Amino acid sequence: MGLVLERKDLRDLSLGAAFLGTGGGGDPYIGRLMLERVMAEGRRVEIVPLGEVSDGDRVIPTAMMGAPTCLVEKIPRGDESALSLRRLEAFLGVQATCTMPVEAGGMNATVPLIVGAQLGLPVVDADGMGRAFPNLYQDTFHVHGVPGTPMAITDEHGDTVILTACDDFRKEWIARGVTIRMGGCAHIAEYPMDGRTARRTAIAGTLSVCLAIGRAIREANEQHRDPFDRLVGTLRDTPYRHARVLWTGKVIEVYRRTTEGFARGWARLRDTEGSGETLDVLIQNENLVARAGTRVLCSVPDLLCILDRETAEPITTEALRYGQQVKVVGVAAPPILRAPEALEVFGPRAFGIDLDFVPIEESAP
Amino acid sequence: MGLVLERKDLRDLSLGAAFLGTGGGGDPYIGRLMLERVMAEGRRVEIVPLGEVSDGDRVIPTAMMGAPTCLVEKIPRGDESALSLRRLEAFLGVQATCTMPVEAGGMNATVPLIVGAQLGLPVVDADGMGRAFPNLYQDTFHVHGVPGTPMAITDEHGDTVILTACDDFRKEWIARGVTIRMGGCAHIAEYPMDGRTARRTAIAGTLSVCLAIGRAIREANEQHRDPFDRLVGTLRDTPYRHARVLWTGKVIEVYRRTTEGFARGWARLRDTEGSGETLDVLIQNENLVARAGTRVLCSVPDLLCILDRETAEPITTEALRYGQQVKVVGVAAPPILRAPEALEVFGPRAFGIDLDFVPIEESAP
Repeated sequence: MGLVLERKDLRDLSLGAAFLGTGGGGDPYIGRLMLERVMAEGRRVEIVPLGEVSDGDRVIPTAMMGAPTCLVEKIPRGDESALSLRRLEAFLGVQATCTMPVEAGGMNATVPLIVGAQLGLPVVDADGMGRAFPNLYQDTFHVHGVPGTPMAITDEHGDTVILTACDDFRKEWIARGVTIRMGGCAHIAEYPMDGRTARRTAIAGTLSVCLAIGRAIREANEQHRDPFDRLVGTLRDTPYRHARVLWTGKVIEVYRRTTEGFARGWARLRDTEGSGETLDVLIQNENLVARAGTRVLCSVPDLLCILDRETAEPITTEALRYGQQVKVVGVAAPPILRAPEALEVFGPRAFGIDLDFVPIEESAP
Repeated sequence: MGLVLERKDLRDLSLGAAFLGTGGGGDPYIGRLMLERVMAEGRRVEIVPLGEVSDGDRVIPTAMMGAPTCLVEKIPRGDESALSLRRLEAFLGVQATCTMPVEAGGMNATVPLIVGAQLGLPVVDADGMGRAFPNLYQDTFHVHGVPGTPMAITDEHGDTVILTACDDFRKEWIARGVTIRMGGCAHIAEYPMDGRTARRTAIAGTLSVCLAIGRAIREANEQHRDPFDRLVGTLRDTPYRHARVLWTGKVIEVYRRTTEGFARGWARLRDTEGSGETLDVLIQNENLVARAGTRVLCSVPDLLCILDRETAEPITTEALRYGQQVKVVGVAAPPILRAPEALEVFGPRAFGIDLDFVPIEESAP
């Protein structure tokens, strides 16, 4: 049974999407405004469970790619992602029966909802990351051998690239180059697949998790309860299971550059609970690894979320700045992301960080 | 009546193509080796006059794009340009009846001949530049409104981009980004057009001019005559009409960088005929402008060719080096490149050089 999204859900959805974005995935505030607009025009957004997708469905996932730092300066026109899907359909000579997030984190949780509303397509409640990751091949579709191309890439001028690559690493390399030329962020339709493949490879229920996380944080704030306790409790009943506050402190330094099509850098947080120690968070679009000296508190693919200390409102990497009072929350990644073959794609070494993955449950408290 | 190219023609062809390359267009030596190989396999290269192309012909021009400095380090596998044409055909749902040079200078005079031999397609004796230019929109097809996309871009891995751009400047910008990602040079099929459009917009006879120039230089050397006199005489009977030796000197300095997908820089030549003055040649893949102090001796779109002082063998921009003894020859561009609307695309200001175009006939001798 599908769920019809209502306008009152949008704040919860974007709050939860920002949380799963682990700092990246693009600012979901912009996605929420775009969704509000298409819904105000009377368009309907239907979310269908992954289990209800039939073998013969043609799923074409949609997303944005690029640096979050560019997205906040280059707001979408609104119809680029839908154009991307349409151009890929034309190239393939097929019609999509639904779209789906590739990345249920940040703005990319909302992009397929906007596309679905504009084109009258249901949106599958699933994605390929269960969070946000910076590279196109960092998803379960790649890990499970779904061909990543042909893909479509579009921009606000209507320029379109149809890319067919010999593998998903060349795909990332060339598509990133196109995105840089398109102004640092672009709109994509990729991993066209049948319903059976989607059921086999996608992470189920991640849009629902966004809604649940957003609701938990909002309700706790409304009821003057601790939103962090509520968050940890809510995640216990999801594929993420385990979450923990890792650090309470103040942002004392941010180094951030937009380079090679990514926002890269690090943030330093001083503990404000007594020890005065510092925590370094490494960033590539998303928060990747948190270290206090040599102690690793959290590492990809586990989720590393920097939240406002009072409201648990997520702070995206492009919005980090000196003086913010924050709590850092670590969340266990869904098991599919922690399998050995998955860790090769999602683990610290996949980002050039010379560390083994340490599950959040096992890291020093 | 078509001309069937013979292996004995290939040296003349590549010599003449190097001359029309005005320093760029890629090293035609590599193109000649590739052509020799396909002809040794028994394949036939048929060149047809532009006037014999019929209205209903489907012409798909082929070329390489990128920095000549990259091409000499990344030799083609051999079938990339043919793949590019085939991928564009598949995207358009049409079959080419012939191919054509976009650029009858440097390696790009030979690329369509290789494609024609491999795919059994005749090659039209015409091009869109009458020389070589660095940017994709610097051709008569663009000037006369032929849509520059859809275009195909391929590399040696088989990666393919089909680009549809909103205009030819976005096309250049995005395709250049793709080419950089593909290693600095890539293979393209672009400006798909019918025969009627080709007849209206292309520069006729430029492959024949390559052959004639190459033959003139070779025969003069064989007969111990002055190849420069022969060259000037040969060009008199072509659309180029006017040519002149502008400078005799020695290369005393070369500054060359591969940046933004182009080979850019300048070469300085000291006069060796008595005055000791220096001539500066500005380079973007091709030789663009020659200046002695404030005196402009030659400027785009006129052809500026640096040749070995004894043999008149052209020296490409990536091969320029200290100590070379050279003559610099200026050649009038065909009239179609000098029309006011054409100068906006081909003149010095189109390269960011703050100079008016001065026809070679009017520049100080």
